[in-house]
Amino acid sequence: MPNTIRHYSQVNDFTKKDFEEVLRRAKIFDVNGKDFTNVAPGKVLGLGFFQESTRTASGAESAIIRLGGGWNGIPSPAGSYVNIGEESMEDTLDSLSDSANILIVRHKSFDLTSYSKKATVPLINGMCGGDEHSAGAIGMGYTLKKKLGNIDNLKIGFYGMVKSSRPAKANIRLLAKYGATFYVDPVVSEFDTPEFIRKEAEAAGAKFVSAKLEDFIGEVDFLNVIEGLPQPGEDPKVLEQYNKKFKIMGKKDFARVRKDAAFYYCMPAMMTDGRTIVNIAEADADSRCLSHAMLREWTPVMMALITYLLDIKV
Amino acid sequence: MPNTIRHYSQVNDFTKKDFEEVLRRAKIFDVNGKDFTNVAPGKVLGLGFFQESTRTASGAESAIIRLGGGWNGIPSPAGSYVNIGEESMEDTLDSLSDSANILIVRHKSFDLTSYSKKATVPLINGMCGGDEHSAGAIGMGYTLKKKLGNIDNLKIGFYGMVKSSRPAKANIRLLAKYGATFYVDPVVSEFDTPEFIRKEAEAAGAKFVSAKLEDFIGEVDFLNVIEGLPQPGEDPKVLEQYNKKFKIMGKKDFARVRKDAAFYYCMPAMMTDGRTIVNIAEADADSRCLSHAMLREWTPVMMALITYLLDIKV
Amino acid sequence: MPNTIRHYSQVNDFTKKDFEEVLRRAKIFDVNGKDFTNVAPGKVLGLGFFQESTRTASGAESAIIRLGGGWNGIPSPAGSYVNIGEESMEDTLDSLSDSANILIVRHKSFDLTSYSKKATVPLINGMCGGDEHSAGAIGMGYTLKKKLGNIDNLKIGFYGMVKSSRPAKANIRLLAKYGATFYVDPVVSEFDTPEFIRKEAEAAGAKFVSAKLEDFIGEVDFLNVIEGLPQPGEDPKVLEQYNKKFKIMGKKDFARVRKDAAFYYCMPAMMTDGRTIVNIAEADADSRCLSHAMLREWTPVMMALITYLLDIKV
Repeated sequence: MPNTIRHYSQVNDFTKKDFEEVLRRAKIFDVNGKDFTNVAPGKVLGLGFFQESTRTASGAESAIIRLGGGWNGIPSPAGSYVNIGEESMEDTLDSLSDSANILIVRHKSFDLTSYSKKATVPLINGMCGGDEHSAGAIGMGYTLKKKLGNIDNLKIGFYGMVKSSRPAKANIRLLAKYGATFYVDPVVSEFDTPEFIRKEAEAAGAKFVSAKLEDFIGEVDFLNVIEGLPQPGEDPKVLEQYNKKFKIMGKKDFARVRKDAAFYYCMPAMMTDGRTIVNIAEADADSRCLSHAMLREWTPVMMALITYLLDIKV
Repeated sequence: MPNTIRHYSQVNDFTKKDFEEVLRRAKIFDVNGKDFTNVAPGKVLGLGFFQESTRTASGAESAIIRLGGGWNGIPSPAGSYVNIGEESMEDTLDSLSDSANILIVRHKSFDLTSYSKKATVPLINGMCGGDEHSAGAIGMGYTLKKKLGNIDNLKIGFYGMVKSSRPAKANIRLLAKYGATFYVDPVVSEFDTPEFIRKEAEAAGAKFVSAKLEDFIGEVDFLNVIEGLPQPGEDPKVLEQYNKKFKIMGKKDFARVRKDAAFYYCMPAMMTDGRTIVNIAEADADSRCLSHAMLREWTPVMMALITYLLDIKV
Repeated sequence: MPNTIRHYSQVNDFTKKDFEEVLRRAKIFDVNGKDFTNVAPGKVLGLGFFQESTRTASGAESAIIRLGGGWNGIPSPAGSYVNIGEESMEDTLDSLSDSANILIVRHKSFDLTSYSKKATVPLINGMCGGDEHSAGAIGMGYTLKKKLGNIDNLKIGFYGMVKSSRPAKANIRLLAKYGATFYVDPVVSEFDTPEFIRKEAEAAGAKFVSAKLEDFIGEVDFLNVIEGLPQPGEDPKVLEQYNKKFKIMGKKDFARVRKDAAFYYCMPAMMTDGRTIVNIAEADADSRCLSHAMLREWTPVMMALITYLLDIKV
């Protein structure tokens, strides 16, 4: 039985056709003020957030409310048996599944894809495990397509710690399916795209170019500035080097981005030294900056993903 | 006025007739995918969880969502004035009552039955006070009846720390009303059924048999394996003895349970030494194991209990 | 665009006419058991509670549920990036705005009025910044009007630390617009009404009388007993003096309040020495005590405020 359930436990659970269908649905839901509460009345989205979340959780909660249902479960790491060491992730997710129609999960290391083989309800990866913010990647894909018209064969620039960024790694996996060419400046080489992600993306049709930000900032269709908060366990010396060399961009730098291109800074936008990865006010003032557009459109994208996995006609 | 409000602050607030009515309603709600949002539109279930909860809270939240309402209040102990010592339980519950139609409460020691005399909305005991998980007991009753056909005059086996288990003590109180015979192996005598519970259950029509697990495992209609997490204050030496003597059951042991019987392991299924009380994978693979069936059916049971206490026709 | 959005970031964002409209709506919603879920189906109230809340959060959650929507965001300080120092309040609120139709915010010091100039959704001050519980003040106004018939030109008594009480300061600002005369006994002079609040209220038409509780308790239309929990940073010696001199009132004292007057004790009603600011049981037993009436009516008041700010016809 569980084998017939659709999951989105990782980007590679979906083909390009799946993504196209989710993007089609998101467009339908991306209308302010329209009442969609008849789409999934009384349906329950279970939250399993074993790491902090502001944006992913709020948008997911908003999505199920707008669809006519509600959310339950564990919206933040404080106050769960997992947190106090009295229960395993598997047992907790098994139990959350018993009262929800679909789950969204965040955890620093849990392997959601392995778990999906025995899961009893559809799973959404809301940044779970070390390698992906899978749900976030669809949000990025939707907003990018809305802004640029299409997302095939794009030139994508990454500036920052790709290796440590689960959103960035998910974005690479998704856009690889659309034939992207990635220009990567990891600031320090230790934070470059992991070899296994690069090889996998190349096999899917992507190309990688190692370059300096200044060499591709004016070339790319989409510039992605990565959050400066590494995964636990990074070498403090490498991080110090990173913080020292990292260039906080503002208005003058964005002026070098092509007029018909877009850019994005990840959130939370903090670095470990307390600075923000861009001048946020100057970024937000630029109509090519998609950070908040992506968050605003994240709710309809989640509505699309939830209805798709629940097999609700839209 | 408060005196006319129905409460379920303890198992003994309900007669067998009350339980039968709740079980009748639960059966109506126990249908996947059916829309019940017209049953209690806009009704609010207030949560007062002053101890951790995964299953009880999630199922209760799910129940009110499926009924067309929503939940508010204190879903976990972190972040309440009670938690930081600035307010009493009474004052907090009084205030939660002002914005909710019905409350569900969990607390390690609070006497919900005394409080119910002045309460202004119906109360549900979601494991409140030292003696009961009253709401859980109805869930057990429902699933057991669904599985076995009826719950009258059952032979029930308990293996584990009955004394410390609020779910077990509530199950005894409820099934006593149905004429159960209880076979109890508390592993170490210190964890045997408390005298006052035993006497009360006997007065209600129950019988108790002290025996070893191996002597009743093949006899009972329902085997209940109790969680290994004692209430605070247990003697560490007794607990050490308990952990040492406790037998973790698996496939081979379940093979000794009657083919037409059922069994159950409590969750969280952890012991204080980090082991789980049964081999969970082997238990879950057995169709006679009701642990997850009970959780899946817990949402309709809560829908039944909420509508009954709110006097909504079903 | 943001400039056309209505906010209630502070009492002075609203004119008397605005308050009258909110009170008119609250009366419509102040009906038990009536279904209003067609008023705001699928609308989302975003919570940004960066300090504890029991009553304000629960009532706001209840309001949006009763209107047919739901709530998301940060319901308690534990478990947010702001809490763990990884994100600023501005950036967090910007992001919460992206998935909600309206926000309610609590923070010890954040300046919500300044922030409102760039906010993208309507804001409600749920005790934000050092000076006001703005939303609470409307609740007080509604219940007072319901009880007394009108709230023009009232004689209002305050007993306690006005300076430290955000609810009291908001009440002064709101009732000043209705021509109130305030009789203030701060127990110790250090906790008297701040000069800037007094001057502002006088400019709006209010009068202030410094007096002892015993001199005005039998005179006022409404006696307000203030919570005994000061804002952080108060001099411990002043607080010790305060606790020593503060008179815990009970039945005998309430007997001195006029028969046709009303009184109120703030909640949480705790003092720093562990006592409660009044004898709560005796206060609650008095039909002139509005503390719980105010909480019960707080949900319809929030329904009124939310629909007004969202420009939904009622």
